Amino acid sequence: MKKRYSKQQRRTMILEAALICFAHKGYNGTTTKDIATQADVSEALLYKHFPNKMAIYAAINDFCIEEGSEVGSIVLKQKNSIFAFISSVYFLMYVVVFATPLKRKYKGISHRLFVYSILEDGQLIEKFHHSSVLPCIQAIRQYYKYLKSQNHITETTAAVDNLIWCVYSVAAMMTIFDLSDKELAFEGSIKNSFHDAVIFALRGLGLKEQVIRDHYEPQQLQDYIEDLFSQNSAV
Amino acid sequence: MKKRYSKQQRRTMILEAALICFAHKGYNGTTTKDIATQADVSEALLYKHFPNKMAIYAAINDFCIEEGSEVGSIVLKQKNSIFAFISSVYFLMYVVVFATPLKRKYKGISHRLFVYSILEDGQLIEKFHHSSVLPCIQAIRQYYKYLKSQNHITETTAAVDNLIWCVYSVAAMMTIFDLSDKELAFEGSIKNSFHDAVIFALRGLGLKEQVIRDHYEPQQLQDYIEDLFSQNSAV
Repeated sequence: MKKRYSKQQRRTMILEAALICFAHKGYNGTTTKDIATQADVSEALLYKHFPNKMAIYAAINDFCIEEGSEVGSIVLKQKNSIFAFISSVYFLMYVVVFATPLKRKYKGISHRLFVYSILEDGQLIEKFHHSSVLPCIQAIRQYYKYLKSQNHITETTAAVDNLIWCVYSVAAMMTIFDLSDKELAFEGSIKNSFHDAVIFALRGLGLKEQVIRDHYEPQQLQDYIEDLFSQNSAV
Repeated sequence: MKKRYSKQQRRTMILEAALICFAHKGYNGTTTKDIATQADVSEALLYKHFPNKMAIYAAINDFCIEEGSEVGSIVLKQKNSIFAFISSVYFLMYVVVFATPLKRKYKGISHRLFVYSILEDGQLIEKFHHSSVLPCIQAIRQYYKYLKSQNHITETTAAVDNLIWCVYSVAAMMTIFDLSDKELAFEGSIKNSFHDAVIFALRGLGLKEQVIRDHYEPQQLQDYIEDLFSQNSAV
């Protein structure tokens, strides 16, 4: 005899099953039958919770997109300083590569959903950029301008927003390669590659070498971000 | 009455149809029936050309992977110089973002196949890295060491290969965003974003600002690469 679950438990089980299906076959490749089978429920029961596949996908999107987290607003709303700039760049890359603690359990899965989204209608990734990437870009742009006025950043003809999109791109691509079972790119542990990528990014943004040498402390930054995460989830 | 085609023509038609199917649904999501329908042939006829789906995919892989092109070996086998370094970095990014002339017709399609490959078994992308990316990395590494000995590159603790993987990652991610109908990232035309990304990459590698200012000429580099392409396809 099957165990009995509450309505809420069933809903969560269906969503977890859907997460796995969509992450492995994309929206277009997944049927409600696949999801029902994965969740070990009948399609009839599934339809009691969600009217259609689209509604399940929408519920999952809400899960993938964390609206402006507490930690984000602390990092991205600092007073102008070298630390504010470096820690925001680090935060953007860190969250993309290592995910927030809440999402770590589903890290590969939500990243696969994002990649499928680019291959399909792009809505999920667009929402993610809007809710999570653009606030980082805004903050980094502001700190960038301040550091430029302080002569810590080298002049360039390149558009600052594009340079910051490059930072995000490095982190995103590193994460996408990491989805594969094969070792497709980068050398050494992901932690070391990540550290090298942050140096690459800070230089790419034009932060002067002397400033990077004096102020970029990977371990301190990681502790800073992880401490913020643990303080803000322990409510 | 259907037009009659030669065996070779039929084979090409089946492969072009398969290219479209695999690019839109991935290997796992495509059936031989889909390919036959897309090619407007019967499944029976399809099986006269290929024993199974795997064989079709293998034939397509050969198409996606150009073994060491003429142009590649000219750019990557220059005498050590600032131009050799900058043009190799440019070449790596240029070919990823704009494709070779031969592949331009299928650009979006082959990039979609690469992305699906990462989500599936990773074999196609691994082959691509092996045949096309690693030779660039080797050459750039060699030019990098030379420029470092000439004091044109800033010292760093980062592994040079990882820095070059970052260069490739920026170009790859830019191209992946460009697959979507939506404007997901970067500002202005792809040509402008690309130019900004090359500056980002040269800085990220540690090439000194003065050297970049004096030697990075985007239009000259584009002409150099395109001239090589046209000279080497006009056989």
